[in-house]
Amino acid sequence: MFRFEIKATCGSARTGVLATSHGEVHTPAFVAVGTLASVKGVTPRHLKEVGTQIIIANTYHLHLQPGEDLVEGAGGLHRFMGWDGPLMTDSGGFQIFSHGAGKEHGVGKIASIFPEEPDRGGHLRKKPGKSLVTVDEDGVDFISYLDGSRHRFTPENVIEIQAKLGTDIILPLDECTSPLHGREYTISAMERTHRWAVRALEAFSKYGKPHQSLLGIVQGGAFEDLRKESAEFVSQQGFSGFAIGGSLGKSKRDMHNVLDWTVPNLPQQKPRHLLGIGEVEDIFEAVKRGVDTFDCVSPTRMARTGTLLSYGHPRHRLHILNSRFRRDYSPVEPDCPCYTCRNFTRAYLRHLFSAREPTAIVLATIHNLSFMERLMEQIRLSIARGNLEQLMKRWGFDSLHNGT
Amino acid sequence: MFRFEIKATCGSARTGVLATSHGEVHTPAFVAVGTLASVKGVTPRHLKEVGTQIIIANTYHLHLQPGEDLVEGAGGLHRFMGWDGPLMTDSGGFQIFSHGAGKEHGVGKIASIFPEEPDRGGHLRKKPGKSLVTVDEDGVDFISYLDGSRHRFTPENVIEIQAKLGTDIILPLDECTSPLHGREYTISAMERTHRWAVRALEAFSKYGKPHQSLLGIVQGGAFEDLRKESAEFVSQQGFSGFAIGGSLGKSKRDMHNVLDWTVPNLPQQKPRHLLGIGEVEDIFEAVKRGVDTFDCVSPTRMARTGTLLSYGHPRHRLHILNSRFRRDYSPVEPDCPCYTCRNFTRAYLRHLFSAREPTAIVLATIHNLSFMERLMEQIRLSIARGNLEQLMKRWGFDSLHNGT
Repeated sequence: MFRFEIKATCGSARTGVLATSHGEVHTPAFVAVGTLASVKGVTPRHLKEVGTQIIIANTYHLHLQPGEDLVEGAGGLHRFMGWDGPLMTDSGGFQIFSHGAGKEHGVGKIASIFPEEPDRGGHLRKKPGKSLVTVDEDGVDFISYLDGSRHRFTPENVIEIQAKLGTDIILPLDECTSPLHGREYTISAMERTHRWAVRALEAFSKYGKPHQSLLGIVQGGAFEDLRKESAEFVSQQGFSGFAIGGSLGKSKRDMHNVLDWTVPNLPQQKPRHLLGIGEVEDIFEAVKRGVDTFDCVSPTRMARTGTLLSYGHPRHRLHILNSRFRRDYSPVEPDCPCYTCRNFTRAYLRHLFSAREPTAIVLATIHNLSFMERLMEQIRLSIARGNLEQLMKRWGFDSLHNGT
Repeated sequence: MFRFEIKATCGSARTGVLATSHGEVHTPAFVAVGTLASVKGVTPRHLKEVGTQIIIANTYHLHLQPGEDLVEGAGGLHRFMGWDGPLMTDSGGFQIFSHGAGKEHGVGKIASIFPEEPDRGGHLRKKPGKSLVTVDEDGVDFISYLDGSRHRFTPENVIEIQAKLGTDIILPLDECTSPLHGREYTISAMERTHRWAVRALEAFSKYGKPHQSLLGIVQGGAFEDLRKESAEFVSQQGFSGFAIGGSLGKSKRDMHNVLDWTVPNLPQQKPRHLLGIGEVEDIFEAVKRGVDTFDCVSPTRMARTGTLLSYGHPRHRLHILNSRFRRDYSPVEPDCPCYTCRNFTRAYLRHLFSAREPTAIVLATIHNLSFMERLMEQIRLSIARGNLEQLMKRWGFDSLHNGT
């Protein structure tokens, strides 16, 4: 089951409901990142409580550990990780990128921000700059960052792996180009990704579970004509919805351009996911341009280092280790209904981070995820009421909206 | 308020209720360790759910960070850490020991087991073997393991600090001798501890909060006459109950002897706490000898390295990283009602530990604490029913009971 219904629009922004076999997702929605079958530091019960609607895990990481067969043996990823709500998996395309060309170029999704490996930089023992990946027409060879073992992904086996995982929304294998790749390479990677998309759909018709849906991924780097071409091509296949992947350019402005070139060329009635983006400002800019869902490690990763999301602070962030919170006996956010804000003070959280107590991560992650859900709820309401612009202004993003 | 009522006995073992201003503790009880105002990896809500009745924090650690004034400003330790149940604090005597003579001798409470500092070995940058502590008649000077700053504890200020923390059950400053200390030093330390006990009671009458109770600490190392002397001396002061501290000898057998020499010389009607002991076997042996409460880092510390308590496994422990749990889709303990066992499999926990996911610690700690509560509940019931011996036999401790 996969149904997407738009309830209201506000300019290009829309609010609606995405129905999966494991429940509904009210959009625009933040997708919590549970790369390795766990949202780091919290339990599914915490997630339900803060209002998390959907989690994204990672095919590449789960293939390496614990392996899709073990997860299938557990009854699928939902049962394995104890999450009965909607669940999606990224294909591993971005990991090809970050261990391959991204590593060669030393860049990430947006050239200036290098995405670390999820908490396991120490495990990556290869010489920096050496690609662990070889792409050919049929698929991609890569070396496990865990133990150096060799693996191969093809458009077909990536679908088979995700069929075993049993996640509700799955993604095809794609090749992510780096912001530093030239036009020529970006074209050839995009065209290969398109051929892989067709093969993925074919494989999905064979291996996909009845409850699963496959999204198409739009590539094309930061080139206007390529993004349009890719959006049009992917739109014409039989995908249930779309994900915007790959290089988003060298600046936030480039990212906005990529969205402007891509989204209008996707069918109105199908959902649009933006891969790996989820800072507050970026969410507003993407929602405004018609994106429905986002996933990003940022809220949970920031939580683990004591950066707490809090409305009204610079960039809506509060660095709890700052000494001015030493005797601050107020909650992180006074009006936040999360367990952390209802029971603990900034002074206590600062103490826990300062003393490196593991509970710090639990409490901070609960709050940051609660913050994201409350933000998304405000965004959904503002679209329904037709005042998204005012909400953005209230959050301090009016100049950005007009200017960049 | 502090009331202790014995409900039933079985040999020297007893079961009863310890009533504090923050609630009742059914004894024998396991006291969860929350050294730095947090039980590592879990929240007070998790603790309530598994049935934790009482937590012990540490005066020494909280004095160094965040400081008792900051905790007092928060409204006391209960409010600071969000725990409204009974709360006790150890005085810091053991820390004098482990940073002082224990460090010189390279030994802990029982000579063969060196108690690590709580998760912060890396912070202890002093040359191993060099004592950070100087004891004199009036008190003790020590250097912070955090920043090298100088501090002084006296019997009086340790009471003042705990008055600020506002914990329900507090302990006087004592000097813990090492199992390798000779008789002569053990005598002089014990006698000083006795003089400090008198001063602590005096200070308590001045600074203690109405809801607080002060326990006396029995010292005397592994010497029969000294333990008796100490128990008798401490019994004659005005303490609300007693704690058995210091060196428990060089083996489990020595520990049993220390209890045999100590407990019968304490008043029947007052509660007895055994400091820093809490492995399953030790709990049975201590309960059998009339101990009412225990605290120990072992269940929570083991949880953090993937050692899960599970009835019937060797030593009732299961090392989740063992490859035989790779595809074990059963819970850690099939009959355990904890959140972890109700929702997750051994295979999943093994995956989380293997992938170093922080949620591993949360789930493992919940289970180990639940295990301890269920064990204590069984012990309480067996005492009430007069069949503690049978329970010990069922847990595989009959030979130990008869032999060592």
